[in-house]
Amino acid sequence: MSIKELIDASHTAIKEDASRAAVSFVTTGELVGATEVTVHARQHEITVDEPPALGGADAGANPVEHALIALASCQAITYRFWAAQLGIALDDLAVTAEGDLDLRGFLGIDEAIRPGFTAVRLTITPRGPEPAERYAELAEAVDRHCPVLDLFSNPTPVERIVLPADLGQR
Amino acid sequence: MSIKELIDASHTAIKEDASRAAVSFVTTGELVGATEVTVHARQHEITVDEPPALGGADAGANPVEHALIALASCQAITYRFWAAQLGIALDDLAVTAEGDLDLRGFLGIDEAIRPGFTAVRLTITPRGPEPAERYAELAEAVDRHCPVLDLFSNPTPVERIVLPADLGQR
Repeated sequence: MSIKELIDASHTAIKEDASRAAVSFVTTGELVGATEVTVHARQHEITVDEPPALGGADAGANPVEHALIALASCQAITYRFWAAQLGIALDDLAVTAEGDLDLRGFLGIDEAIRPGFTAVRLTITPRGPEPAERYAELAEAVDRHCPVLDLFSNPTPVERIVLPADLGQR
Repeated sequence: MSIKELIDASHTAIKEDASRAAVSFVTTGELVGATEVTVHARQHEITVDEPPALGGADAGANPVEHALIALASCQAITYRFWAAQLGIALDDLAVTAEGDLDLRGFLGIDEAIRPGFTAVRLTITPRGPEPAERYAELAEAVDRHCPVLDLFSNPTPVERIVLPADLGQR
């Protein structure tokens, strides 16, 4: 099934029964080293670690890099979907996501400084035969519909539970 | 160097020269399949893809799963750092991050529905010999200093540039 056929089938299925649009994603992780974390998402296993300057052995990209990986890949895939939806030819696409952090936030050296990214820059290069205006139209549609760009741009409600070890699953 | 020694050295270095606290992280990605994206973060290569229900071949976790991987791992590592900073013994830690999505947002079926997570649940099980109050104290410190929890909870400024293909790097 092409992406366009999948989109059309999804629209039909969800219009028949809106509950089909509700999906959940779960990841589980364990600290397995000084800063190394093994995380599972369905059958996929991802190693996250910090570079030596942040106390780790650099066995994988670190958490904030994974946040940028999420953003870059979500932009790329949302371009693919919306290009199909809008009938815009897209041959390929390159994306760069860059984020600035002030470690005084994370380390608690200055409580007025946020621990997260203070600024993020996203550069997208879509390639294909269409005139530039059509890729500008596509970019506008992507910015309104990209799940991870929404996560970066707007607050998301997070419910946090700390379970005592004797109740938690190992 | 232990995490505590690294924290102490970082505090000293950053208090001498605050510009040492400014760090940037860069990731670059390319669409390499229908929805498969290869992303690089320094020397690390990560494959992101969608499951078949979302048009892909499931060659990797998808973008919103990577956002949850970022959150889960950042919590785990921030527990490690703040346990050292507060002198709280932490033997190990399990974390689960779960996010709900309403695909009507991503697909543009209902423009009033946000494309990103509508709710996220985070469950943390720290393990160690300390009384429960100390892990509660640790959890409070982590929630104030976790970079990716901040990213989820608060808006982050994102500057977005679409480069014409003839100016973009391949």
